[in-house]
Amino acid sequence: MARLDDLKGFLIAPDPEAAGLTRRLAGTDQTGAATQVSVVEERPLTIFLNSREIVTAMTIGDYPKYLALGFLRNQGMLNDDDEVTGVEYDDDLEVVVVRTARETDHEEKLKKKTRTSGCAVGTVFGDMMEGLEGLELPQTQVRLSDLYALSNQINRTPSLYLEAGAIHGTVLCEGARPLVYMEDVGRHNAVDKIAGWMFSEGIGAENKTLYTTGRLTSEMVIKTALMGIPALVSRSGFTAWGVDIARQVGLTLIGRLRGRRFVCLSGEERLLRDADPETVGEEDARHRRKGARP
Amino acid sequence: MARLDDLKGFLIAPDPEAAGLTRRLAGTDQTGAATQVSVVEERPLTIFLNSREIVTAMTIGDYPKYLALGFLRNQGMLNDDDEVTGVEYDDDLEVVVVRTARETDHEEKLKKKTRTSGCAVGTVFGDMMEGLEGLELPQTQVRLSDLYALSNQINRTPSLYLEAGAIHGTVLCEGARPLVYMEDVGRHNAVDKIAGWMFSEGIGAENKTLYTTGRLTSEMVIKTALMGIPALVSRSGFTAWGVDIARQVGLTLIGRLRGRRFVCLSGEERLLRDADPETVGEEDARHRRKGARP
Repeated sequence: MARLDDLKGFLIAPDPEAAGLTRRLAGTDQTGAATQVSVVEERPLTIFLNSREIVTAMTIGDYPKYLALGFLRNQGMLNDDDEVTGVEYDDDLEVVVVRTARETDHEEKLKKKTRTSGCAVGTVFGDMMEGLEGLELPQTQVRLSDLYALSNQINRTPSLYLEAGAIHGTVLCEGARPLVYMEDVGRHNAVDKIAGWMFSEGIGAENKTLYTTGRLTSEMVIKTALMGIPALVSRSGFTAWGVDIARQVGLTLIGRLRGRRFVCLSGEERLLRDADPETVGEEDARHRRKGARP
Repeated sequence: MARLDDLKGFLIAPDPEAAGLTRRLAGTDQTGAATQVSVVEERPLTIFLNSREIVTAMTIGDYPKYLALGFLRNQGMLNDDDEVTGVEYDDDLEVVVVRTARETDHEEKLKKKTRTSGCAVGTVFGDMMEGLEGLELPQTQVRLSDLYALSNQINRTPSLYLEAGAIHGTVLCEGARPLVYMEDVGRHNAVDKIAGWMFSEGIGAENKTLYTTGRLTSEMVIKTALMGIPALVSRSGFTAWGVDIARQVGLTLIGRLRGRRFVCLSGEERLLRDADPETVGEEDARHRRKGARP
């Protein structure tokens, strides 16, 4: 596992100035005046595992290799004992090919599953739910002081969201430090890109917290648990099934985190209340974002 | 086409009190005090077309028949000339079966596609993009005064969002009247339920506007266009591809509608500016919701 102790800032942060991620489009505002707005790009990326086409994802288009690796990891199609021999990205074809030393049995599994299900959701959920059986997450403590520090820092970090909106963000954190901040038009892509980075860099999950701007749905909770991350935090709200699964696997689940406020619906026993919420300011209006409710 | 002229209010509105759509869950707040929050349900629904399993959607669970019909319509698997002979819903099995008089060729098409693609996104997008070729939407005018009236009424309507959060809303509107207000954990499900209702009731699309709380992504724009609705309005922002497609098919596309403000990035020529934005109040903080930015 990589040593991250000596690092202070982000290892990967959003680059709102990057070419190809946003576009200026001309339109009109409410007064009829001409206006220009920044809009995020959205493009297809088709992921292959060896010779088999697995999925086409709609993505903003940065970090296609991490997205492919993370997607396959989170679907259970790429395991710890699989040796990745190559990851090739073709910008023109909008294709990523992940190659493994041996053909995996997921090819056969997928063939069988897609015969009865035309869509990802069936395939994906079956595989993902299977992976949860017997899973127990590490009992890492989560400090309240860290949560407030993370939330504050993440909301003030320049991002595609602040530039153009209409995008989700997910941040891999360790203690009070945000390490990798990914954004994508699909919120699951942002998580998959983090999973791909962790897999590529050999980063352990047991002392990490995942912060997301998106809702705490079943799929988001399952992905976090399969990644082995013991805490998931969001500005947004919960679904009941998401909470059920978090309780089943012992994930600390915190939602509606805005300014000093939040709700913890699972894994409360691992929350170390080392900060007084009264000393935390309400959220600055300028940094309020998606999911914010007064 | 049904006559709607004599109707004033919603034909279908959210029912935040309905059994089975939300659950009270116990947790703790930032002070460590016990708290109870309302959380939306999320459950699988598997849709069959005749004998073929098509998809498993994660849904809040209301209007399963509309969801099934609308999903199949929006995927191009159920056309105007298909006669639906039955729609059966089994609550225990969480299954809807849609039966048609003749087997459709979509079964064969699906079989072929799923052989090369394990996921909905590939299958779905191919079919949906095909449906756009040569499509031209009706040149219906959109009144600014109607947009402001709709936005104001929809934001004040009791909803699962106001009760529990973490849910998307989509509203089919005619002039200044919101007709059918659907909510779902998946924003595409909310649109599909509206499509299913329109198909079941034989409702025309040419004088309608679709209002959504979600982002104006390619998939949202494609669905609206395939439904034949000439205007799509959202509180949230745009993706570049969504705007490209709207311009291609002549859809009036309005985003970031909050209080008096909005941006129109497509179909400006059909916007009738019959209201002075200066006379419209800023949004009441209590009614601010997802997508809101100061």
